[in-house]
Amino acid sequence: MAQTQKTELSIPTATISRLVTYLRILTNLEKSGVNRTSSDQLAEEAQVSAFQVRKDLAYFGRFGTRGMGYTVLTLRRELQRILGLNRHWNVVIIGMGRLGQALADYPGYKENNLYDFNLKGLFDIDPAKIGMTMHGITVSHVNDLEQLVREQNIDMGFLTVPVEKAQDAADALIKAGIKGILNFAPTVLEVGEDVAVEQVDFMAGMKRLAFYILNPHLKALKEDEE
Amino acid sequence: MAQTQKTELSIPTATISRLVTYLRILTNLEKSGVNRTSSDQLAEEAQVSAFQVRKDLAYFGRFGTRGMGYTVLTLRRELQRILGLNRHWNVVIIGMGRLGQALADYPGYKENNLYDFNLKGLFDIDPAKIGMTMHGITVSHVNDLEQLVREQNIDMGFLTVPVEKAQDAADALIKAGIKGILNFAPTVLEVGEDVAVEQVDFMAGMKRLAFYILNPHLKALKEDEE
Repeated sequence: MAQTQKTELSIPTATISRLVTYLRILTNLEKSGVNRTSSDQLAEEAQVSAFQVRKDLAYFGRFGTRGMGYTVLTLRRELQRILGLNRHWNVVIIGMGRLGQALADYPGYKENNLYDFNLKGLFDIDPAKIGMTMHGITVSHVNDLEQLVREQNIDMGFLTVPVEKAQDAADALIKAGIKGILNFAPTVLEVGEDVAVEQVDFMAGMKRLAFYILNPHLKALKEDEE
Repeated sequence: MAQTQKTELSIPTATISRLVTYLRILTNLEKSGVNRTSSDQLAEEAQVSAFQVRKDLAYFGRFGTRGMGYTVLTLRRELQRILGLNRHWNVVIIGMGRLGQALADYPGYKENNLYDFNLKGLFDIDPAKIGMTMHGITVSHVNDLEQLVREQNIDMGFLTVPVEKAQDAADALIKAGIKGILNFAPTVLEVGEDVAVEQVDFMAGMKRLAFYILNPHLKALKEDEE
């Protein structure tokens, strides 16, 4: 938890989302052997404006040289540092239904050996699931969460339980000392100020999609909002 | 496809996301027998500012009465109409790996009988998966997509194939006449201007979460960005 950023207090969450996109683009450019890039190229690949790219980066300092663009390797490393992706993150999944199992199966936790998310524990409260083994990890009872978090320095929990159990599961994660929750249940969790929650709500995505199918003229402006 | 909105051309995508949240809150208030609400109450439940709520709604017209708040039923119906959720949406899933199967299993397509997403087809290219039956739907080859889309008026496709097959699968969906894609593959799809794409990228959520765990002082401002 060393690299807390010295940043202004008014960074839009959309900027953080776009930094994640820029990092993915830079990583691909680097893999393709490209050494230099520009806000125009990043903008085109990310489907935003070049102004937006420069504005997003400006929150975190000065990168690149005016008229010369950016060094791919340097900017990739900077974004990785800013996002906290220059380290390992230890993860548990709580809720081993079909979605939890699909996530345990997900091959992409490690990306290009640059950073990784290590799956360290699987939890449920259903006796039928406790004791199952997936990828060498045995599903444990939620009561054992606190011990694992303490012993293995768990950073984040994926919450894949039904909506009506989501707050209880979140409370269990927080009580065990976890500071970040990736919430797949379509409900707003009540958490303290020291706990971060990111929502993965695919029903919300379906609903936005319904809007944009009906309003295709609004689509082109989607990303360019600030 | 009747209800195209007459709206301004500069509505932020974050506003659309929040309308989805407000609709969920209003639906819950209605279920609880609450008749009236306010921008303050919606703001508190959605964890944004009351100013943000009023600004988001103002893109679409005037709702409620100054100093009197909103009628829950009326505002719920208005948001549903704006979002295009006063109709049925026919859905196919392309990619019947573990995630596609988890999505086919998802119980929440129908919410409170107010609107629904009907799963109409499952597709893959793997001979081992074609012919499997889930929820009374047989997995078909992607080659049969076009016929189903024509016969059953399919509106949107969920794309749950591996990254390296995502563009091909998207092309197949678009060729079949689908105008909206919910993309679970962590890659930017190239689509024409008449096709809407919404990304469900849980790795991006993990990365944002890493940032907010390291920068907890930025968390409180997350939603209040405009």
